[in-house]
Amino acid sequence: MPQSRRPAGSTIGIVATLIAGLFWSARVSAADPLPAWNEGASKRSITNFVKRVTDPTSTGFVPPRERIAVFDNDGTLWCEQPLYVQLAFALDRMQIMAPQHPEWREQEPYKAALARDVEAILSKGDYLMKVMMASHAEMTTVEFDRAVKEWMATARNPQTGRPYTDMVYQPMIELLAYLRAHEFQTWIVSGGGVDFIRPWAKQVYGIPPERVVGSTVKLRFELREKRPTLVRTSEFDFINNAAGKPIAIQKHIGRRPLAVFGNSDGDLQMLQWTAAGSGPRLAMIVHHTDGVREPAYDRKSNIGRLDKALDAALRNGWTVVDIKREWRTLHPLVP
Amino acid sequence: MPQSRRPAGSTIGIVATLIAGLFWSARVSAADPLPAWNEGASKRSITNFVKRVTDPTSTGFVPPRERIAVFDNDGTLWCEQPLYVQLAFALDRMQIMAPQHPEWREQEPYKAALARDVEAILSKGDYLMKVMMASHAEMTTVEFDRAVKEWMATARNPQTGRPYTDMVYQPMIELLAYLRAHEFQTWIVSGGGVDFIRPWAKQVYGIPPERVVGSTVKLRFELREKRPTLVRTSEFDFINNAAGKPIAIQKHIGRRPLAVFGNSDGDLQMLQWTAAGSGPRLAMIVHHTDGVREPAYDRKSNIGRLDKALDAALRNGWTVVDIKREWRTLHPLVP
Repeated sequence: MPQSRRPAGSTIGIVATLIAGLFWSARVSAADPLPAWNEGASKRSITNFVKRVTDPTSTGFVPPRERIAVFDNDGTLWCEQPLYVQLAFALDRMQIMAPQHPEWREQEPYKAALARDVEAILSKGDYLMKVMMASHAEMTTVEFDRAVKEWMATARNPQTGRPYTDMVYQPMIELLAYLRAHEFQTWIVSGGGVDFIRPWAKQVYGIPPERVVGSTVKLRFELREKRPTLVRTSEFDFINNAAGKPIAIQKHIGRRPLAVFGNSDGDLQMLQWTAAGSGPRLAMIVHHTDGVREPAYDRKSNIGRLDKALDAALRNGWTVVDIKREWRTLHPLVP
Repeated sequence: MPQSRRPAGSTIGIVATLIAGLFWSARVSAADPLPAWNEGASKRSITNFVKRVTDPTSTGFVPPRERIAVFDNDGTLWCEQPLYVQLAFALDRMQIMAPQHPEWREQEPYKAALARDVEAILSKGDYLMKVMMASHAEMTTVEFDRAVKEWMATARNPQTGRPYTDMVYQPMIELLAYLRAHEFQTWIVSGGGVDFIRPWAKQVYGIPPERVVGSTVKLRFELREKRPTLVRTSEFDFINNAAGKPIAIQKHIGRRPLAVFGNSDGDLQMLQWTAAGSGPRLAMIVHHTDGVREPAYDRKSNIGRLDKALDAALRNGWTVVDIKREWRTLHPLVP
C-alpha cells in the first residue's frame, strides 16, 4: 500500500541521507582540516608551508621540537571590537570597586572609565594603562585568577550578546589544531595581560598557561600569616607590544618562531623577527576587511591599528588574510 | 681434547655471562629507575611521591598537564665548585676582551677578574654583577649563543679536568628522566643567565630552551642593515634568585609546581611556594655533605650557601638529600 510504504521509504531515505552525510562530512574533514577557510591564497600558503616544513624529504624540513608558532590574541585569535576584552573586564571591575574610591568620580581617566567612555580612555597615551592598573592591582595571583574566571563565565560582548570566549575566530581555532596536529607548539604572544589570558586559554584555544606570553605587572612575594603569597603590584613589569614581542619571545621561548600570526602594528616587530629567520617561515596578518559580519578596520582604527605592518606585509610578501573573501565562518556556530 | 675444548667452553661461558649480564642490567634498570641513588629516605620520598600523584586511584592523583617539576641548576643539577660555571665563562671572556679594555688593569672588580681572583669577586655585593655585565653585554643573542657553545666545548673544571657538562650530577639526571617518564614537565629555574644555560640544556638535561627560566638582561630590538636583531644590553632585566624564583615561576609557567629541587638559600622561596600548594608536593634540598668525592659545604659557603633554607627544611619536614650517604655515583662515569 502506497501510504504505508511511504513512511518506510522516507525513513530509509532519511537514514541513507544521514549515513551519506556522515561519510561526506568525515571525508570533508579528513580532506580539509581548515573548513572555515575558503580556498584562496592564504589557505594555500598555510598548507604549503606546513607541507614543506613537515615533509622529511623536503629541503625545508624542520624537526618537531623547532616548530614554534606564535599568535597575537586580540584581533587575531578573537574579536577585539567594540573594545579590548580586557578593558571590558577592567571597566566592570571598576564599577564594583567604585564605592571604595570616591575620588574616581572627579578624576580622569577614572571618571571616563566609570562612564564606560572607551573613546576617552583610548584618546590619551597613559589613560588605558592607568585604568588597567587601578582595576588589576593589589590582588594576589590566586584572587586575580578567580576574578577572571568568574567574569568570563558571565560577561557578554555588547555587540553580539555572546560570551567573549565564543567570539574567537573559527578559522584560527582550526589553524591552531592543524598546526598542533603537525607537531607545532602553539604560543600566544599578546599585548594583553598574561594573567588575564591564562585562566581560559587551555579550554578555549588548547594552549596551556606556560605557552601564554603577555604583559606583566611586577609581583611581590610575601608571607601572609606564614603562607607564601604572590601579590600583583601597580607597577608595570613588561609591556608585551611592538619591539617587546620579539624580546619576550626570546625570553620565554628562546628560539625564533617558524610561523607568526598578527593583525596590527603591535605585531610588526615579531613578524619581522620571525620572517628574518633562515629557511621557510610563515608570516601572516589577519586583515579585518569584512564590514558586514564584523566591523572593517585597519589604518585609522584606535583599536588594533594596522598601518605600518600592512605596508611591511605588502613590501615583503607576507600573507595577508582578507577576512571578507577568505573566511567562510567567523565564529563558532551557536550550539 | 681438553685443551681444544677449553677455549670453546670459555667462549660459551663468556657469552653466557654477557647474556646474563644484559638480562640482569635490563632487570635492574626496569626495577630501579634511580640506580645512582642508594636506598634511603630521599629515594623513598621521591618514588612514593611519584606513585601518589600518578596513580589514578590515589587521592593525591594529579593529571599530567599539572605535573610541573622545577630544578635549580648550580649545585643542584651540576657542580658549582670551585666556582660558578658562568663565572668561569665570564673570566675567560674577559681575558679575550682585555686588550680592548686597558682601564680594566687598574679598576676593580675587573682587575680581580683578570687575575681570576674568585674570592675577591664574591667578596662584595655588586662585584659579581659587574663582572657578568662587562663580559656578557653588547652582543647579539645569536653571537652570545655561539660564544657559549664554543666555550662549553673546550672549557674544563679546574679541579677535575672534566668538561663542565660532564660535571652534572648523575642521580639528578636519572631523576629528570624518571619524572619525565611519569609525564612531568621538567623545568630549570636558575639564578644563572637563561641564555647561558639554554644552548646546552637540551643535550645535557633533556630540557628544551622554553623550559629554562633564568636571570635576564634587557634586550634591545634593532634593525641592522634592515635585519632585525636582538642585542644584549648591560642593564639587568630580572635577577632570578630568592623571591625572584617564585615570581619567575608565575611569569613563565603560570602554575605552582608540584615538585621543587634546590640546594641553597636562593631556592628558599620557591621551596616555600611549592610546598604551600594543596595536595602532595615534593620539596627537596641537595645537601653537599660529601667532602671526599667533592667539597662539603653549606652554612658558611660563599658559593651556594645553604643556611636558612636548611633550617626551613628541617622545620617543615622537606626532604634533605645527604650526598655522602645517599648518592652512589656523583657524576656520569667517564666513557
